[in-house]
Amino acid sequence: MGAAEQRLAELGIVLPSPAAPVANYVPFVRTGQLVVISGQLCLGQDGTIADRHKGKLGAEVSPEAGQEAARLCAINVLAQLRAAVGDLDQVVRCVRLGGFINAEPTFAALAPVMNGASDLMVAVFGDKGRHARSTIGVAELPLDAAVEVEAMFEVR
Amino acid sequence: MGAAEQRLAELGIVLPSPAAPVANYVPFVRTGQLVVISGQLCLGQDGTIADRHKGKLGAEVSPEAGQEAARLCAINVLAQLRAAVGDLDQVVRCVRLGGFINAEPTFAALAPVMNGASDLMVAVFGDKGRHARSTIGVAELPLDAAVEVEAMFEVR
Amino acid sequence: MGAAEQRLAELGIVLPSPAAPVANYVPFVRTGQLVVISGQLCLGQDGTIADRHKGKLGAEVSPEAGQEAARLCAINVLAQLRAAVGDLDQVVRCVRLGGFINAEPTFAALAPVMNGASDLMVAVFGDKGRHARSTIGVAELPLDAAVEVEAMFEVR
Repeated sequence: MGAAEQRLAELGIVLPSPAAPVANYVPFVRTGQLVVISGQLCLGQDGTIADRHKGKLGAEVSPEAGQEAARLCAINVLAQLRAAVGDLDQVVRCVRLGGFINAEPTFAALAPVMNGASDLMVAVFGDKGRHARSTIGVAELPLDAAVEVEAMFEVR
Repeated sequence: MGAAEQRLAELGIVLPSPAAPVANYVPFVRTGQLVVISGQLCLGQDGTIADRHKGKLGAEVSPEAGQEAARLCAINVLAQLRAAVGDLDQVVRCVRLGGFINAEPTFAALAPVMNGASDLMVAVFGDKGRHARSTIGVAELPLDAAVEVEAMFEVR
Repeated sequence: MGAAEQRLAELGIVLPSPAAPVANYVPFVRTGQLVVISGQLCLGQDGTIADRHKGKLGAEVSPEAGQEAARLCAINVLAQLRAAVGDLDQVVRCVRLGGFINAEPTFAALAPVMNGASDLMVAVFGDKGRHARSTIGVAELPLDAAVEVEAMFEVR
């Protein structure tokens, strides 16, 4: 077991079964050394979104719940990534995360929410987990999820 | 005529003349084996946006009209793609679609709208059309379009 | 001094010190010939956002101030790019800009705002600065910035 899979175990994170595609798209595509991962919602281990991770930051979703939601998105990203490459030790670098926060038009503290996803990448991959990132507040997300995270990785 | 161009003909789709750049950007850039396509609005064959494809999902735009709008965006993506690579049979894979839905903050049924674009990719390219995708609801789009779709393709 | 660095000087633009990472992400990642740059806010030379570049287009931020804000984002993109590759003459092509405009749900004149960023790219890089682009109006941005711009470049 390599470093990334071991850190995941040490963190006590069990990756969920990656969600099956629900429409005419797929959870990831590999092109050359890049894996592009579809936007992942804050689904829990049971495949549903908990009530506290539904709705908008600045309204019914607290900053703490938002950060948890971002971490869940990142866990789902990792589940898709492992399905794409077999094991996480094939990862050369987390290249980019895109963070979409379901937010009231007045909720500007978006970066700390997204840190829930970014921190997990670095906890799992170390320096290879440090990524470029864009974070925006959006009007709405599928299933009224509080957070959605998309990703790009460079792999072996 | 290869498979993709033939399917397009069978679907009865005539690609519009790709829209000329209206500012200091271009409709596509090729880098290596990747073609990156600028966000395409739901312009019809005449180069304008029909009234029923203007405005917000959850307000004046119905889910059905939204799905049509997403399909129009995808048709415009294909028009730019053909301009980029000569013919659609040069496509190795649709890597990613980004779907931006002009939505009321309460309209969470965003994925079915975006299926209008995803379904067309698979209708034209078959399995090579199955892509990674992110769908978000945004506050507003250029020209008050109901949908905007950006894309990345791997090509020969 | 090559063409791009010279044009920058002719434009009288002094790139700011690239902002240090404030969380578990980094301002840029290089993968192969691509440099992916994190979303840059409209910070001025002093590292803060001026009052007139805070808030929403269609409300307290005028179209002119929005365009200035987009240009500032582009300057910050260039500062990160230079830090990534040493000097701007290593750039083969600006591949893509993503423009996020903090906008009222009724403000559809988003493209002219984003031109503030696009025009600078072409002013600095000439034809190599002509890029693919997506522009969307978002519900909110970090620090209540009026504009955020992310970028991808092909480099030597």
